[in-house]
Amino acid sequence: MATIVLYSINRTAQTTVRQCLIPYSKGASRVDSHLSVFLKTSVRRLTSLPRVRWVPNATGVRFMSLGTAGRTAPGRTRRGAVLVAGAAATVVGFVASATHFQRAEMASVIPKTEEEDTEIAEKCKTFMSPPCTDVKVLQQKKEEMCTRMEMLIMETQAEFCRALEEVDGGKFKVDRWERKEGGGGISCVLQDGRVFEKAGVNVSVVFGNLTEEAAKQMRSRGKVLKGKDGKLPFCAMGVSSVIHPTNPHIPTVHFNYRYFEIEEGDGTKQWWFGGGTDLTPTYVNKEDGAHFHNSLKEACDKHHHQYYPDFKKWCDRYFYIPHRGETRGIGGIFFDDLDSPSQEEAFSFVKSCAHTVVPCYLPIVQKHLNDPFSPEEKDWQQVRRGRYVEFNLVYDRGVKFGLATPGSRIESILMSLPLTAKWEYMHEPPKGTLEADMLEVLQNPKEWV
Amino acid sequence: MATIVLYSINRTAQTTVRQCLIPYSKGASRVDSHLSVFLKTSVRRLTSLPRVRWVPNATGVRFMSLGTAGRTAPGRTRRGAVLVAGAAATVVGFVASATHFQRAEMASVIPKTEEEDTEIAEKCKTFMSPPCTDVKVLQQKKEEMCTRMEMLIMETQAEFCRALEEVDGGKFKVDRWERKEGGGGISCVLQDGRVFEKAGVNVSVVFGNLTEEAAKQMRSRGKVLKGKDGKLPFCAMGVSSVIHPTNPHIPTVHFNYRYFEIEEGDGTKQWWFGGGTDLTPTYVNKEDGAHFHNSLKEACDKHHHQYYPDFKKWCDRYFYIPHRGETRGIGGIFFDDLDSPSQEEAFSFVKSCAHTVVPCYLPIVQKHLNDPFSPEEKDWQQVRRGRYVEFNLVYDRGVKFGLATPGSRIESILMSLPLTAKWEYMHEPPKGTLEADMLEVLQNPKEWV
Repeated sequence: MATIVLYSINRTAQTTVRQCLIPYSKGASRVDSHLSVFLKTSVRRLTSLPRVRWVPNATGVRFMSLGTAGRTAPGRTRRGAVLVAGAAATVVGFVASATHFQRAEMASVIPKTEEEDTEIAEKCKTFMSPPCTDVKVLQQKKEEMCTRMEMLIMETQAEFCRALEEVDGGKFKVDRWERKEGGGGISCVLQDGRVFEKAGVNVSVVFGNLTEEAAKQMRSRGKVLKGKDGKLPFCAMGVSSVIHPTNPHIPTVHFNYRYFEIEEGDGTKQWWFGGGTDLTPTYVNKEDGAHFHNSLKEACDKHHHQYYPDFKKWCDRYFYIPHRGETRGIGGIFFDDLDSPSQEEAFSFVKSCAHTVVPCYLPIVQKHLNDPFSPEEKDWQQVRRGRYVEFNLVYDRGVKFGLATPGSRIESILMSLPLTAKWEYMHEPPKGTLEADMLEVLQNPKEWV
Repeated sequence: MATIVLYSINRTAQTTVRQCLIPYSKGASRVDSHLSVFLKTSVRRLTSLPRVRWVPNATGVRFMSLGTAGRTAPGRTRRGAVLVAGAAATVVGFVASATHFQRAEMASVIPKTEEEDTEIAEKCKTFMSPPCTDVKVLQQKKEEMCTRMEMLIMETQAEFCRALEEVDGGKFKVDRWERKEGGGGISCVLQDGRVFEKAGVNVSVVFGNLTEEAAKQMRSRGKVLKGKDGKLPFCAMGVSSVIHPTNPHIPTVHFNYRYFEIEEGDGTKQWWFGGGTDLTPTYVNKEDGAHFHNSLKEACDKHHHQYYPDFKKWCDRYFYIPHRGETRGIGGIFFDDLDSPSQEEAFSFVKSCAHTVVPCYLPIVQKHLNDPFSPEEKDWQQVRRGRYVEFNLVYDRGVKFGLATPGSRIESILMSLPLTAKWEYMHEPPKGTLEADMLEVLQNPKEWV
């Protein structure tokens, strides 16, 4: 309703409304999963949002630019670049005479048909909850990367949760939450299930202003970003999940796919994707490892033959516990700061990865569903979960950033921790045992394909 | 034996041997608890230690200085200060003509009697293991703060372990370990006991060179220390312990008492003490809280009436989990960077605190030894232990410093983690329950005396 009101106002002025830093339902209660309530409550709050910035542009004009990968500087026309790359990039548009806000915003204003609007609305109905951003806004900005990524993460959440529910028999608890500083999310958790001890699938779409220091931390390469008065408007979104099964023969899986946009003081917009999927078994199973890594390789190979080998190495390097001298699990893929070859191609790659989550993991779950296990095997799983906790709390950049960010939803960040974990003093599996075999693999990462 | 050899060499040269950065038994095996083996293995290794620095001084000359509290600058005579303060401080000595090493070293060379030597040796026999430093070296340097502190931490470890063994019926496993970069320690752990799920009491005496950055981190006030070519020789020692009982009605206790010395590039030596004792119950028990805090207050009041109120506040502030908005437990005392009013008085205070560990905790253990508990109470204990892990891994300066320091003994650092812990998504005790009462106290620290 709020968006309808604003839309009609702008219609009168012969402009189409767009907004880069996505509004969200401030009024939606945590567990509210009814679209009607969500939309209704949005109305009351949206008008008072201080940071919502509406940018009018001429209807039907599509500003396109491939830009420098991951970066669009205002003031220079990049039509040539678009033609050379031949990509239908919907990145940042600008005209020389545009205002600062216009330059700073993405501009892909396209005339809508009723049919297209219905498509978004219909898709949203299949999600675990209405998306973080108002459906009407998504419809209006359907070609923008923020919208496309939000639709992808919502779709991935739903697809994965449904697959897990089917195998477990339990139901995910769906929590909508909001971040006072801007944005919100949807956390889906299944705890004490038949198959899963703790399964969490989280979506978040947050925005606001970052300090230059925080922005630097946010970007793995630590690139220095210059803000206006030290402030950098940002928008970040992602889907992340950690699944801890009860049976020690079913591995833990983690995945996370995310998108960032940061606007520098001069209006330049930086964007990049990050993500990965990795497996943490309690015992070595070569067949499982090969299936998992082959699925990821297949997804990567569609886009670049170097992606799998590079991102596999990155994963082993990232999920490493220095004080233990071992990796967290048997890896998978991990990448960050992906801002090339074009936004469209980077997104297409991320989409392939996201669509691989179910096929790379669920067959492994199905296979070990009824594997018997001993108390000793459960115990070893608990020790490994202790290491999982150590990695997540001491080294994981996402967790560290989240805990240090005011207004973060702690329960969603720490959802990744196992239900239970164990720390035995001087736990050293005897040589020749399956536990020692696992340790050996964690100390010396293997090739699985 | 090693020390005997070196001692005799120096005797020939009419000097008394002393060494500030304490040598340790490089060759002693981890679980070696026999003094004879310890001494024998020392011989083989000590001669090849590259960092051992022997400083000859004229026999019988005692250099004394109270110095600026926590700091002794070379080149200025401080005899006046010694007289004014009237303290028998055995801090850093120097003479104008002294070499750099002489200035940098502590100088309390005192003629020994056989009786005094026997006293140290006899005391060492009551410890859980021979001390980190060779007994002969301790005897030679018995009046130096490094020696006195090492004797105190060894004594505290033994006293506490024996008291816990008596109540539990189990025996501590004693591990001697060494740090490649310099120093070592003694870890005592009792796991899966009748009363204690996991009890760890650790002593460590480490030395080597710190980078200026590391030295800054080491000191809570972040004081900048200037090294020689960026290096700062340091010596650090302490006793630390965390006791996690099985019964949720017996609280977890933690204490740590430590001493640091860092030598700046210009020969100035910085020293300070730190420490504290704090309680983490699963349920509020006013009587226990009062007993615990009163015991600490009594120890503090003997030294300064402001110590308890100041260090109680510091404890609540330090053991705080910002992302949860709650303290780890009900506090106690905590202090750091204590370098006043004099080294002697600061040590005397630390001694009082260390001697209070058993009387402040053991009566609480005894009292609840046979309290019945339900699975729900055990569950709440596990959730609280999850928070304990969060604090220790995310915020504790000691753990962070340890994990980031090459050559640290990880098992001793992470000994503080509970045997088991739990993370339930969105765990919120209903209002009016005993669990909610506990949370309320953690969210709003109370006065207990």
